[in-house]
Amino acid sequence: MEKSVKSDSFNAIGKKALALHKKARGKFSVAAKVPVKNRDDLKLAYTPGVGAVSTYLAKNPKAARTYTMKGNSVAVISDGSAVLGLGNIGPYAALPVMEGKAVIFKEFADIDAVPIVLSTQDTEEIIKIVKAIAPAFGGINLEDIAAPRCFEIEARLKKELDIPVMHDDQHGTAIIVLAGLLNALKVVGKKISNVRIVISGAGAAGTAIAKILAAEHAGEILVLDRQGIIARRRTDLSPVKRELARLTNPRNVTGGLADALRGSDVFIGVSGASLATEAMIRSMNTKSVVFALANPIPEIMPDLALSAGAAVVGTGRSDFPNQLNNSQVFPGVFRGALDNRVKQITDQMKRRAARAIASLVPKPSKTHIVPDMFDKRLVKTVARAIKD
Amino acid sequence: MEKSVKSDSFNAIGKKALALHKKARGKFSVAAKVPVKNRDDLKLAYTPGVGAVSTYLAKNPKAARTYTMKGNSVAVISDGSAVLGLGNIGPYAALPVMEGKAVIFKEFADIDAVPIVLSTQDTEEIIKIVKAIAPAFGGINLEDIAAPRCFEIEARLKKELDIPVMHDDQHGTAIIVLAGLLNALKVVGKKISNVRIVISGAGAAGTAIAKILAAEHAGEILVLDRQGIIARRRTDLSPVKRELARLTNPRNVTGGLADALRGSDVFIGVSGASLATEAMIRSMNTKSVVFALANPIPEIMPDLALSAGAAVVGTGRSDFPNQLNNSQVFPGVFRGALDNRVKQITDQMKRRAARAIASLVPKPSKTHIVPDMFDKRLVKTVARAIKD
Repeated sequence: MEKSVKSDSFNAIGKKALALHKKARGKFSVAAKVPVKNRDDLKLAYTPGVGAVSTYLAKNPKAARTYTMKGNSVAVISDGSAVLGLGNIGPYAALPVMEGKAVIFKEFADIDAVPIVLSTQDTEEIIKIVKAIAPAFGGINLEDIAAPRCFEIEARLKKELDIPVMHDDQHGTAIIVLAGLLNALKVVGKKISNVRIVISGAGAAGTAIAKILAAEHAGEILVLDRQGIIARRRTDLSPVKRELARLTNPRNVTGGLADALRGSDVFIGVSGASLATEAMIRSMNTKSVVFALANPIPEIMPDLALSAGAAVVGTGRSDFPNQLNNSQVFPGVFRGALDNRVKQITDQMKRRAARAIASLVPKPSKTHIVPDMFDKRLVKTVARAIKD
Repeated sequence: MEKSVKSDSFNAIGKKALALHKKARGKFSVAAKVPVKNRDDLKLAYTPGVGAVSTYLAKNPKAARTYTMKGNSVAVISDGSAVLGLGNIGPYAALPVMEGKAVIFKEFADIDAVPIVLSTQDTEEIIKIVKAIAPAFGGINLEDIAAPRCFEIEARLKKELDIPVMHDDQHGTAIIVLAGLLNALKVVGKKISNVRIVISGAGAAGTAIAKILAAEHAGEILVLDRQGIIARRRTDLSPVKRELARLTNPRNVTGGLADALRGSDVFIGVSGASLATEAMIRSMNTKSVVFALANPIPEIMPDLALSAGAAVVGTGRSDFPNQLNNSQVFPGVFRGALDNRVKQITDQMKRRAARAIASLVPKPSKTHIVPDMFDKRLVKTVARAIKD
């Protein structure tokens, strides 16, 4: 009953969303920062005045950050290969999501973000294209690009461009999960160095979460892909997963989600594919923490997780307590990267950002571990953490 | 004296333009078309509601024109190789110009145009990149790309994309020149089929102007490049110029600008390089028409052309009478292309647009041959001409 009510209301939201998008004809639009109402305006904004700006920038290309959009712009780039939980649905279907991000960038961090969706899913081509279009932008937000391609693309672009590049599905998610976990562990009175954490999903988000938690010296981390727990003894691992196997699973165990969760302290679901049952949650240690982040349908609904004994439950959704969503992170990360002119968003900055988010809730509770994304302090606090 | 005053005021405009760009930090910004002020807004604009839009577009990609920015967006793309009259000054120096176009697109035609400047000048790479980023856009405005590369890029993209592609330096200029010429010839009482027209400059603009005038059965057309009059007997011609030689210069004459102008009726300057002297203008037929379109310094200043006997003089600048500038054209062309969902902007549409512009000045005079770019009728009138 509960489930069908949820799904009905989800359908109702979908219908409303379709109607809104149709009526507005999308969400992204452009606005002029200078007036162009008469000839005098145009002489400065366009010819002949703009010639002086171009001439100056020809000699001083780095001043583009001061005289052009570059100082405040981010390209939100997707190849449509891993859109929300919907999979490889292509550039047109990805576009409303990128427009949504652009609108959030604007409203929450006053960043001018431009949606770019690509008709190619070739790694080398994507790298070449992003590099070629980079001059107008002060940052690159990669979005909804499938693993493992996303790792290679991000790593190469970080190396080859002199503006910050972040794959938000990885790092935005990892930052908010770490922030939420730091405070959830406070609520249950456990230390990160002592807990066993199970991450279901070894895609973009799962990989980045495992890495940031390993950097935080989490007690024991198990990561699962579709074949089960990632372990050094497995022979079917990609290079990225072999790296995960080295970073995690010190006891080199194998098995499925039920095996992994038994006796663990924290469950972080970021796959959408593997559902967690009440029995699995019941098999965890007491005072367990459950972050069921699949969108729109969590790996386990919060009420079920709570009734199965979880002490703190978070989801990716805004209609349950403890939303953990990269929307709480990316506006502030890029605001900081632009304001502080950082060339790379480092692991240290990400961990600092997570701590800064956690610090905004000094007395966390079961139903309040991280600030609401409408918390006015959030963007500024994260932005301050993103500096060299 | 006159000249130094002009150049001082030009410097003053340049200084003001630099100050304005610095203060505003560029001209392009983003605005949300839907509210994202609270959770309910976000549920529709972003997750979970946007998932319904993405799911719908995965099945119906063509509906992107209705549900996303694609229905009203244009990418303004340059490789920075032929910026204004400044030459190959690169992507950063090109960016203020592209932002200026984006701002004009918005203010004059309510089109959401995105500046894209490229760090490559390789023809094949540019074609590949523009094709790859096309899904988010309803049209492609190529800008300030050097000839002859611009011809190949435009031709290939027109063939390979299903959205309208226009190199504005070519066709925006050709349309406004034809419009201006039709009315200027009315003023001087000459017929286009009887006049001799000299076009100085065989780059993007000169080539497109020659073609549109040939299609209008202009009496005789001579086009000059840096080596002089383009003629079939010349052996140094590129393929594009060989085509021009076939379309123009029926008497197969050679020589320089002075030779070409002697006894001609119309001078159209679009090179910036070759200056016209008063003596040359004096050697033209009576009631001559002079369009000195180089920006910011015309091939000959209007007062000099008039004192040397020209009957009608136009420039590319807004501070002289008879401004002929692609800004009068491109907002309407793309407004029409988007509204009428045309897949290609054809030669017929361009000639129709020129006639439509000319028709807005039913009684042209020496100092008023085309509508001001602030004429409210202009965009609508041009837009109506751009349909299948």
